[in-house]
Amino acid sequence: MSAPIIAIDAMGGDFGPRCIVPASIACLAEFPSLHLILVGQAPLLEELIARENGVDRQRLSVEHASEVVGMDERPSQALRGKPDSSMRIALDLVRAGRAQACVSAGNTGALMALSRYMLKTLPGIDRPAMVSAVPTAKGHCHLLDLGANVDCSAEHLYQFAVMGSVAAEALGVSRPRIALLNVGTEDIKGNQQVKLASSLLQQAEGLNYIGYIEGDGLYRGEADVVVCDGFVGNILLKSSEGLASMISARIEALFTDSLGSRMVGALALPLLRRLQGDLAPARHNGASFLGLQGIVVKSHGAAGSDGFQSAIRRALMEIRENLPQRLHGRLEDLLL
Amino acid sequence: MSAPIIAIDAMGGDFGPRCIVPASIACLAEFPSLHLILVGQAPLLEELIARENGVDRQRLSVEHASEVVGMDERPSQALRGKPDSSMRIALDLVRAGRAQACVSAGNTGALMALSRYMLKTLPGIDRPAMVSAVPTAKGHCHLLDLGANVDCSAEHLYQFAVMGSVAAEALGVSRPRIALLNVGTEDIKGNQQVKLASSLLQQAEGLNYIGYIEGDGLYRGEADVVVCDGFVGNILLKSSEGLASMISARIEALFTDSLGSRMVGALALPLLRRLQGDLAPARHNGASFLGLQGIVVKSHGAAGSDGFQSAIRRALMEIRENLPQRLHGRLEDLLL
Repeated sequence: MSAPIIAIDAMGGDFGPRCIVPASIACLAEFPSLHLILVGQAPLLEELIARENGVDRQRLSVEHASEVVGMDERPSQALRGKPDSSMRIALDLVRAGRAQACVSAGNTGALMALSRYMLKTLPGIDRPAMVSAVPTAKGHCHLLDLGANVDCSAEHLYQFAVMGSVAAEALGVSRPRIALLNVGTEDIKGNQQVKLASSLLQQAEGLNYIGYIEGDGLYRGEADVVVCDGFVGNILLKSSEGLASMISARIEALFTDSLGSRMVGALALPLLRRLQGDLAPARHNGASFLGLQGIVVKSHGAAGSDGFQSAIRRALMEIRENLPQRLHGRLEDLLL
Repeated sequence: MSAPIIAIDAMGGDFGPRCIVPASIACLAEFPSLHLILVGQAPLLEELIARENGVDRQRLSVEHASEVVGMDERPSQALRGKPDSSMRIALDLVRAGRAQACVSAGNTGALMALSRYMLKTLPGIDRPAMVSAVPTAKGHCHLLDLGANVDCSAEHLYQFAVMGSVAAEALGVSRPRIALLNVGTEDIKGNQQVKLASSLLQQAEGLNYIGYIEGDGLYRGEADVVVCDGFVGNILLKSSEGLASMISARIEALFTDSLGSRMVGALALPLLRRLQGDLAPARHNGASFLGLQGIVVKSHGAAGSDGFQSAIRRALMEIRENLPQRLHGRLEDLLL
């Protein structure tokens, strides 16, 4: 296999290039065969690179882009109004075969719209989905869709299940247990789309469909792939992040409200802080777009350097597993 | 005001009468004017009462019911096939004016179906909603619907907003901030129902509608009343419970993995366990059915004695505030 090349939209996210450039350089040190192309305002990027020591410029290049997609911009504006945005140029590097993956911490809606426009979906896939690994009591589950598609038909949910299953296999899960997220586990529960998707999945051969799962079952680790529409997935993920942050803050407060508890806290908090990466899954892991003719990984907008590095690692793993090609092969067998 | 009387479905829930009878008796001790009617298999209930000390039988009576609604039974079966269930008899005491509220830890779907059939909805309300107080960084928010209605139109969401606002006011929140749960806070975000509900709420006078809220904003305490359909609300609530349980378990594990961490844990865990009530909101607080011509509170099926007592306290508060009457008055002004 040739050396992996990843195009980095270096301008996106709440922290922008000041966080993304050092994170990218740290990944170059971690993976000696990795090549990165940083896309964005070249003078600024060169200045930030110059601040770092021992950078292997053989494996790090800069591609200039004069525009930046704003975090609150409409996808249509990013699509039509900004032909020279860093996001678009990074995706174009993938489209042209100059990079094998794109990583961005920018505006999610714009990234999805541009990805579909630039890279196109795989045959048989109506809509790409966003997937992320969510920590559970037994490891991780792959939750999709996380917000790319607010209204989904049963057929869309079925396609998400197929894509999630193939992606989980690529990540080393054998015969991934697929479940549909629902308000109960009995047959009569749920809305029409979910019930119909369940009967499509029951009929599909070669998928390990285990039925419905509830929100608490997801965190108990009862499935490897959990499927829902993007409205539900986005709210599940963001409310989980919010709850985890609230619990972290309460734990910190618990250990500061008296001298005695501060002393206990001095011992306990370092242990407890180890948990915090786990408590904000998307922030930490990034989300992958599935169903495109190319690899696109979205790093959380509020991710720090660690989060952005995780997103690059995810893109690298998808390149190694040749995920779009693998998805294409399985989709031909499994799609109705 | 006359003494409050609450009918208790003593047979429901995962723990049944062995948990519910002592919880009920504890509430009688806490509230000297409270009267309770325990509904269920009379010989069993009498035996359980006899085990407790100092019970004021002037304020505790038993009403026999020969049948029990199973936790997995279909609502239609509970409605048509079990005329003498403890759930139905308890609701009938409310319908007949012999009690002012019903509390049950039984099958949620059956309780909702029987409540609608026995008590009817308030004028202008198509469907009752389930609401519960969810802990946030700033106190609580009232989240509805929690699963009674999996498919909701914009008008239903509007009705839930009105009911949630009135209920929050009754609980002491002045000018409750109402928000619609969505996948973003910009106008363009969301599905059709949510967008239309938003425009209905913007037009309504006398409601403090603040716009969209995301899952993390809910836990940051940005609104007092958060409105969503029952599919989303149920999944948000159950996934929050699941995540909170997972975090609790990981914290316990963190303090047992070495001798040093066990010593820190001996000091820290008693403090951390104080948080656990907060971490499982519905389990702790119970959920109230809004929009009925009567008061019905659902205790979590897996609630222990503390949770059931919280549900009785919630029913008592709704009796004192005369919540259905208050809702009826405000609905006449606010419904379209």
